[in-house]
Amino acid sequence: MGFSKSRPLFSSAARRLSASPASYLLCRSWQHQPKFCPASTLAASEPVGASLSAANISIERTAAPKEKLPPTKLVFGHTFTDHMVQIPWNDTDGWLTPKILPYQNLSLDPATCVFHYAFECFEGMKAYKDSNGSIRLFRPDKNMDRMSKTAARICLPTFDHDALIKIIAELVKLDGDWIPSERGYSLYLRPTLIGTQASLGVAPPKSALLYVIMSPVGPYYPTGFKAVKLEATDYAIRAWPKGVGDRKLGANYAPGILPQRMAASRGFQQNLWLFGDEGYITEVGTMNAFFVFQLPDGKLELATAPLDGTILEGVTRDSILALARERFDKDKWVISERKFTIQEVADHAKAGTLVEAFGSGTAAVVSPIKEISWRGQPIAVPLQAGKETGMVAEQMAQWIAEIQYGEVEHPWSVLLN
Amino acid sequence: MGFSKSRPLFSSAARRLSASPASYLLCRSWQHQPKFCPASTLAASEPVGASLSAANISIERTAAPKEKLPPTKLVFGHTFTDHMVQIPWNDTDGWLTPKILPYQNLSLDPATCVFHYAFECFEGMKAYKDSNGSIRLFRPDKNMDRMSKTAARICLPTFDHDALIKIIAELVKLDGDWIPSERGYSLYLRPTLIGTQASLGVAPPKSALLYVIMSPVGPYYPTGFKAVKLEATDYAIRAWPKGVGDRKLGANYAPGILPQRMAASRGFQQNLWLFGDEGYITEVGTMNAFFVFQLPDGKLELATAPLDGTILEGVTRDSILALARERFDKDKWVISERKFTIQEVADHAKAGTLVEAFGSGTAAVVSPIKEISWRGQPIAVPLQAGKETGMVAEQMAQWIAEIQYGEVEHPWSVLLN
Repeated sequence: MGFSKSRPLFSSAARRLSASPASYLLCRSWQHQPKFCPASTLAASEPVGASLSAANISIERTAAPKEKLPPTKLVFGHTFTDHMVQIPWNDTDGWLTPKILPYQNLSLDPATCVFHYAFECFEGMKAYKDSNGSIRLFRPDKNMDRMSKTAARICLPTFDHDALIKIIAELVKLDGDWIPSERGYSLYLRPTLIGTQASLGVAPPKSALLYVIMSPVGPYYPTGFKAVKLEATDYAIRAWPKGVGDRKLGANYAPGILPQRMAASRGFQQNLWLFGDEGYITEVGTMNAFFVFQLPDGKLELATAPLDGTILEGVTRDSILALARERFDKDKWVISERKFTIQEVADHAKAGTLVEAFGSGTAAVVSPIKEISWRGQPIAVPLQAGKETGMVAEQMAQWIAEIQYGEVEHPWSVLLN
Repeated sequence: MGFSKSRPLFSSAARRLSASPASYLLCRSWQHQPKFCPASTLAASEPVGASLSAANISIERTAAPKEKLPPTKLVFGHTFTDHMVQIPWNDTDGWLTPKILPYQNLSLDPATCVFHYAFECFEGMKAYKDSNGSIRLFRPDKNMDRMSKTAARICLPTFDHDALIKIIAELVKLDGDWIPSERGYSLYLRPTLIGTQASLGVAPPKSALLYVIMSPVGPYYPTGFKAVKLEATDYAIRAWPKGVGDRKLGANYAPGILPQRMAASRGFQQNLWLFGDEGYITEVGTMNAFFVFQLPDGKLELATAPLDGTILEGVTRDSILALARERFDKDKWVISERKFTIQEVADHAKAGTLVEAFGSGTAAVVSPIKEISWRGQPIAVPLQAGKETGMVAEQMAQWIAEIQYGEVEHPWSVLLN
């Protein structure tokens, strides 16, 4: 059937990336001297060769379909479906024909630049089966936009957003029976783009491979929410101004693992990443961070860090902000993207005006927080009576799931069949 | 013959890494709260299973040796020798048997963590053929030490330094006829360590692969020095305090490519990386940065940025500092590891007391600088009359080459046969 005609989602937001992708990061708020990065100087980044196209996908079906695990046995990112997408690119021909192939190993020269210089970026998104058995994606245009921005930041090729969504849709439909039907289950999609040039000079890769793999996943909280304890971390920092913390680069992940392990060794599930002497709250683990404060005028504030170049532009973050702005009572709520510090959180906790805190991301949607350790002292974060979550996190999880599973019609949910 | 007994280089410096490698980065000068990272909390990082051992290397020789290029046709990192080292590791068994194999592709599941989260680090070092036809390494203990520190920072396994040097030596000797005999030529060695766990959770890899490939390379300046023009870069930041800029991680490289391309589009070969509102000079491209200033008392100062956690601990940097401290006239020279700014450089240039500037690294040894563009204005850097280099860079290139090629006996040069 192809895409539902009633939902023209692939319009402006999912357009072909304009001609100077490299200007994405370097001409931002942290940029003091815009004269140094006008788009006109970035001619070397212009797309070359063929555009990415979904017109002639080649499909090779597996001769040996894998056995599927019972849904309750699924572990995040451990089981993969029967097929994958592979789309090679090179700087002469541009994007080559997209291929859907049996899931298989990549065979790469050991000099390939992805192994040495972290020429790699990825996305995380999900496909859901609704009660009619139809398959839905959640805001794929946002993932495509972010992936293009990220690719451009490390001189990997950008691509036509519509085309990649269509190619991914073909893969999802082909392996549609891998999506568990149970509410709470989904198919995690991992578009990945790696540099494949096999030489050791540190330079823009002349070849790349975009691939997509898919993993059926269960609910993040199979037995109800489970709130986490965080360690406020200022002995390591995740990202910095004029760096790449707002891009979904592999480079942002490995360096966070040792602090996570250190926090875990002290009994905390994740790091609450602080920045600067002020202790600005930036992210939690690999998620965006939300806090709810009661204000002196009696209103409630839902606050998260602003997109200042150090914060990942989370799709769930954006969805939560949009839903709060649309559905929360405007007389009672203030929705803020602003800088705030761990001291402010501690002060609110002491005053009894810290209402709630949670992380947001594709995997868990929301991750309620019950305690933050800061300089060895615990800051208690309230939960609802008898529940391991605050009210906003619970509400957002419900609203977003209703949209993802098509129970409430919403333009964010894209029907594939 | 094995290692020369007269050169006990593999003593304390190349010892087995002690039990808490994770403390390497996080308990440094940038660390405000040392109580948060005592080594005793890092039990999860303790080595497990077998240590890396050179005792039972398995060797499989190629049945189809490649044709060798004429030395003059060599391009850095494009041609590789007949064999490679592969050593798998997993968190149950530790290091498995080292294998020397025909150079070959790696076959990896597309979910492998090196493709997604940049679990990767590397070293760059060289083997030289001396006038007797013997093969020499240059300070391999320094590379091993840095590689272990880097691996520990992203929860990849550390290893016995002596053992890896011995394994690398076996590979170099096997492919010894790939080392061009001509002065200025060498064999570039690329030890690489990647995470190989094939699942998408962001966590310490449970398996890894250490491999070594080798590329014969020609002189960096086949027709004499060629000084470069730099763009002082403050619109992008290479590294940050409490980050990972002092580690040889893949993650530090891809984000530097777009600024390099932007500088190149304006006619500059490299970025001079600045830090902070003060404009501290940190590195140049992927090299350490040295400046020579004339001081008010008539002395000369050789200055480079200190190892404060944002600077790569360059082996060539260390060698230059050591040689200067040992061989320069102490009445005439001050050797400084200190912070200094682009403004200080500009002031020296204006006063006629900027004497010289150069980058240092394994590939080029030294890279003389002739101009720095800062906020659109050129800072001219003096060169010697009729030469594309300053005096110190030229002297250091000569001294280091004499040691590397065994023309001057020095404990830094390790004979392999």
